[in-house]
Amino acid sequence: MISIETLKNRRNKLAQLINIPAILWSGKAPSRNFRANNYPFRASSHFLYFAGLTLENAAIYLEKGKLTLFMDNPSPDSTLWSGKMRTREGIAEEIGANDAYPMEALKSKIKGVATIAVQDRFTYQQQCQILNRSLPSIQELIDIDLELVKAIVTLRSTHDQAALKEIKKAIEVSVNAHKIGIKSTQKYSTEAEVRGAMEGYIMSQNMTCAYNSIVTINGEVLHNQTYNNSLNSGDLLLADVGAETDLGWASDITRTWPVSGHFSRSQRDIYDIVLASHDACIEAIKPGIEYREIHLLAAKIIAEGLVDLGILKGDAETLVEKDAHALFFPHGVGHLLGLDVHDMEDLGDLAGYEAGRKRSKRFGLGYLRLDRPLKAGMIVTIEPGFYQVPAILNNPNFQKKYHQDIDWDTLKQFSDVKGIRIEDDILVTQKGAEILTAKLPTQASEIENLCQA
Amino acid sequence: MISIETLKNRRNKLAQLINIPAILWSGKAPSRNFRANNYPFRASSHFLYFAGLTLENAAIYLEKGKLTLFMDNPSPDSTLWSGKMRTREGIAEEIGANDAYPMEALKSKIKGVATIAVQDRFTYQQQCQILNRSLPSIQELIDIDLELVKAIVTLRSTHDQAALKEIKKAIEVSVNAHKIGIKSTQKYSTEAEVRGAMEGYIMSQNMTCAYNSIVTINGEVLHNQTYNNSLNSGDLLLADVGAETDLGWASDITRTWPVSGHFSRSQRDIYDIVLASHDACIEAIKPGIEYREIHLLAAKIIAEGLVDLGILKGDAETLVEKDAHALFFPHGVGHLLGLDVHDMEDLGDLAGYEAGRKRSKRFGLGYLRLDRPLKAGMIVTIEPGFYQVPAILNNPNFQKKYHQDIDWDTLKQFSDVKGIRIEDDILVTQKGAEILTAKLPTQASEIENLCQA
Repeated sequence: MISIETLKNRRNKLAQLINIPAILWSGKAPSRNFRANNYPFRASSHFLYFAGLTLENAAIYLEKGKLTLFMDNPSPDSTLWSGKMRTREGIAEEIGANDAYPMEALKSKIKGVATIAVQDRFTYQQQCQILNRSLPSIQELIDIDLELVKAIVTLRSTHDQAALKEIKKAIEVSVNAHKIGIKSTQKYSTEAEVRGAMEGYIMSQNMTCAYNSIVTINGEVLHNQTYNNSLNSGDLLLADVGAETDLGWASDITRTWPVSGHFSRSQRDIYDIVLASHDACIEAIKPGIEYREIHLLAAKIIAEGLVDLGILKGDAETLVEKDAHALFFPHGVGHLLGLDVHDMEDLGDLAGYEAGRKRSKRFGLGYLRLDRPLKAGMIVTIEPGFYQVPAILNNPNFQKKYHQDIDWDTLKQFSDVKGIRIEDDILVTQKGAEILTAKLPTQASEIENLCQA
Repeated sequence: MISIETLKNRRNKLAQLINIPAILWSGKAPSRNFRANNYPFRASSHFLYFAGLTLENAAIYLEKGKLTLFMDNPSPDSTLWSGKMRTREGIAEEIGANDAYPMEALKSKIKGVATIAVQDRFTYQQQCQILNRSLPSIQELIDIDLELVKAIVTLRSTHDQAALKEIKKAIEVSVNAHKIGIKSTQKYSTEAEVRGAMEGYIMSQNMTCAYNSIVTINGEVLHNQTYNNSLNSGDLLLADVGAETDLGWASDITRTWPVSGHFSRSQRDIYDIVLASHDACIEAIKPGIEYREIHLLAAKIIAEGLVDLGILKGDAETLVEKDAHALFFPHGVGHLLGLDVHDMEDLGDLAGYEAGRKRSKRFGLGYLRLDRPLKAGMIVTIEPGFYQVPAILNNPNFQKKYHQDIDWDTLKQFSDVKGIRIEDDILVTQKGAEILTAKLPTQASEIENLCQA
C-alpha cells in the first residue's frame, strides 16, 4: 500500500500546480475472447498515482487536494462468485478519500473538469458520455485537459519515496528473474523455456510483467515478441524482461548472454563496446544534464568501439554527426520509468519532451523517447545496444550513404553478433546517479560465471 | 497450421448452411497502459475458425465457400522493428485464400454482408463504420447477422479432426502443468509460486493460458483470481488452469489436492463424492443425451453423498428438486470447449442453449451454460464441485428455506473442505465418451502419490 500521507501529498502537489478540478478513471479490463474471459485488469497509471490502488471501474474526483471516490459496491451476486469484496466505504478509508459515492453520482461533478483519456475504449466512451464532450487525441489536447496533463507530467516525472520503494521491489524481482534465466539457459533448448522460467518466477512473486517480454536469439528484431526459436550453442540470447508490482510500478532490464555460457571472441568484443557505452552514460548522469547528450555519448562510444574493431571507418564524432552509429544502434538510449515502463507514454511526447521540443528528423535521434534535462528524482533507463538489422544494413539508400564508413568485410567477422543490449534502471540523485539494478552483473566475465552457476 | 483442406471444408460447410456473404474481423490487441504496450493479441475465434491463423488487424470475406483476405502489408518501418514479416500474398497462400486485398478494399464488399461483433472496442467501431450500421448486442441480433451466428454455432459445436488435434495438444500441456503443480506444491509456500510453476510451464511450451488461472486455497471463491495466500498444511489447493495453443484452441482442467500431500478424512470423504459425481457424468455421456440431465445427475450424486455423510437430510432426488444440492454445488456441471474455453460464449446463450430454451430461474439450474442434447464431435467439460460459500450458507433466506435439509453440526466437521472441483475435457463419440484429459489422475490416492512424487 502507498500510505495515505503520500497519496495526500501527491494530491496537494497537484492542487498547487493547477486550480482545475479533474476526474481520473481507472478503466476496465478489456475482453479477450468473450466478456467473462478478460485480460488481467491494469488500472490507468494516472488513477494509480493518486488513488494508490488497483480498482476496476472506478473514478476519482480531485479538487484542491481533496479526493472523492466514485465506485459501485459489489453486487450480492458478485460476492457469491468472487468472495468477500471490499466496499466503497472501506476503500475510501484505505486511500484517504474525503468522500465516496456510487458511480452514478459522478454526473453531478462534471462542470469544468479536466480529464485524461483512458486506454480501454469501453471506459473511453463512458468518459465522453459522462463529460458530454469528445476527448481529443493527445496531439490535439487543449485548454484544461492540456493543463492537467502538464501538471501530472511535472508531478510524475520525479519520484517520491513510496514510488521509489515500489520500483525497487519490482527491480528486485526482475533481477532475480534475469539470474534465473541466465543460470538456466544451458538446460533449456528453446527461447520459450527461458521465458517461461523468467516469467514464471515473476508470477511466483505475485507480480506481473510490465511489458511483453523479449527473450530471443534474434536480438536484432527489436520488438520481437515470439519465442519459437531453438537455442543453439553459438547464439546470444537477449532478454528484455521487467516485473511490475501489484500497485502498478514498473522495472525494465535487459541482459544478453551466450547460450553456451561463453562469449565468442567477436561477441565479447562487441559486448564490451556496448558495456563501455552503458557505463559511460551512467557515469555522465547528473541533475541538469540533457538526456539527449547522454544518448549522443552512447552513440559516440559505440562508434569509437566500432572504429577500433575496424567495422566503422573514420572519426567517431563525425560518424555520429552523420548518424552512422544508428546503422547498428538505431533506437534511443532509454526513457523515463515509473508506473509505466515508458513512463507516461500515453501522453505522447508531452512527458518525454521538454516543452517546445520536437522529435528530430535525424535517423540517429528520431527514436529518442526522452529529451529533457535530467532532475534529481527521475528514473531513466540506460540501454545502449548493437544490432545487425537486415532492414537497415540491406537498405540500398543506407548502403550508398554510408558506403565509405563501413568495412563490410570486417563486419562479416561479427556475423554471430545479431543483437546485444544492456539495460539498467537509474535514479538521478543530487550527487549523480544510483544504479537501481546494480545487483545484476553486467561484465561479460560475470555473465559467463552466472551462466555456469 | 490447420491444413488448407480443413479450412476450405469449414468454409464450404458454412456456404451449405447459409447463402449470405459474411465478413469476420480478427481484431486488434487492446492497449494496456499505453498504445505501444499492448496486451498479447488474441484473434477473434470466429476469424480463427475460418482463417486458421492469428493475424492482427485483418478481415476475411466469406461467400459461397470462397475466402477473400483483407489485410495491409507491413510497413517498411515495422520491418525495421519487427523483423521480416509475412506478406498478405504469402499469408493468402498459406490459408488458401481465393483473393487478397488491402484493408481499404473491404469497403467495396459491404453490401448485404453479415458479421459478428469482435471483442475489442477499437475494431468494433471500425466494423460499424465500414459496414455503415450499428451492430446490436447478441441478445438483439436479427436478420442476416443472426442467421450467420446460427450457422457458425452449428459448425463450431462439433469438432473436425484438425480442431481435435489442437485441443489435444493444449490438453497435453495442461496435464503436464497440473502434474508440475501437484508435484511441486510441497516445496512452495504460496499460491503464487504454484501458479508461477504451472503457467511458467505452459509458457515454456509456447502456449498461453486459455483463461485467467484459479490457483487458490479458497476454492469456494469460484472466480478467485488472486494468488496472495500462503499455503498451510491443512489446506486444499484448487487449480483451474488450462493452456491454449498458438492457433487459439483451448483446454480446461481443474484438480484439487492437499497442500500436505495427504487428504484429511473429511477432505477425502467429500473428494470421493465429487469424484463419484464426475465419473458418473462421464459414464452417462453419449450422443442424444441432454446435457441438462448430466447436470442433474451430477447434482443427484453429490446430494446422495452428502446424505450419506449426514450433511444433507432426506432423499437425494427430492433434495435436487428443491435445489438443496446447489447450496454446495451452485454452478453448472460444465460447458462447451473449443476455440474458447466457454466455447462461443461471445454469442451469449445462442451456442449453449438449444433454440427456444432459456436459462432456468431455478437456483440449481440457472447457472448451467449448456442445455442441448449432446452430439458426437462435441467437446464438453465435466466439472462437479463442492464448496462452502459463505454468501450462500450464511444467507438467511437459504438458511430458512433449507432449515430441515442441512445438519449444521455435521457440516462443521467438514470445515477443512472449502472448495473441491474435479474437471475434465470430454469428447462425445458415437459410442459414448472419450476422456481427453485421462492422463491426469483423478483418484484421491493417485493425487496423493503425485504429491509425493
